[in-house]
Amino acid sequence: MKLAHLGIAVKSLDDSVKIFEKIFKVKATEKEYVDEQKVNVRKLHLENCDLELLEGTDPESPISKYIEKKGEGIHHVSFEVSDIAGSLIELKEEGIKLINETPRTGADDMLIAFLHPKSTNSILIEFTQKKK
Amino acid sequence: MKLAHLGIAVKSLDDSVKIFEKIFKVKATEKEYVDEQKVNVRKLHLENCDLELLEGTDPESPISKYIEKKGEGIHHVSFEVSDIAGSLIELKEEGIKLINETPRTGADDMLIAFLHPKSTNSILIEFTQKKK
Repeated sequence: MKLAHLGIAVKSLDDSVKIFEKIFKVKATEKEYVDEQKVNVRKLHLENCDLELLEGTDPESPISKYIEKKGEGIHHVSFEVSDIAGSLIELKEEGIKLINETPRTGADDMLIAFLHPKSTNSILIEFTQKKK
Repeated sequence: MKLAHLGIAVKSLDDSVKIFEKIFKVKATEKEYVDEQKVNVRKLHLENCDLELLEGTDPESPISKYIEKKGEGIHHVSFEVSDIAGSLIELKEEGIKLINETPRTGADDMLIAFLHPKSTNSILIEFTQKKK
């Protein structure tokens, strides 16, 4: 299992991209809009994972709500797994709380599912898998 | 530049290790004590990075203080760089606030330095470099 990306909630994508490009010495991707989450996204591809900067475009966006409650910071951590459906069944059996008990289709046509932060020291963990 | 580890602040190392071993399907390392930070550490080696579970052993530990203020969660993100001293000079010139303007020796005899969360959307970023 490997870490795929860190999802970072930011108030201003333009301001944060300037800083993150300086720190990580890579150019961010162009802005993409993900309608389902009401967010604009720009990614920085590092050597072994991505940083995804996420800016809510609507007060109802999960990112806007997160910033309202907790401020800017790491919103979620995404891990790539080989068998997402099987992993979810196994974790549920072991008593880990899940937000999504079955995978759904997320951005980039990946299968995704979130574990419940109540089971994971308040960290929002996402599992992802490429569709076969 | 690559992500080296996520430092995760937990109240109980024993409880959290049980959960993280289930989720990530790897065994955590044995407990180590880092006196400088007053923390017990157990690591999970994933395919492309480590998760470091950190439990304060003293109310004055940075981890205990973090949990008191913000609750459990991701305390810092560590990135491996090839020239830590040069990177810090460059970032300072570019106006990024630093906690450590010169590298110091951390755990595992690595050179480390922290950037200031005020410059990085509230994320505590650590740079690390193996000593040459």
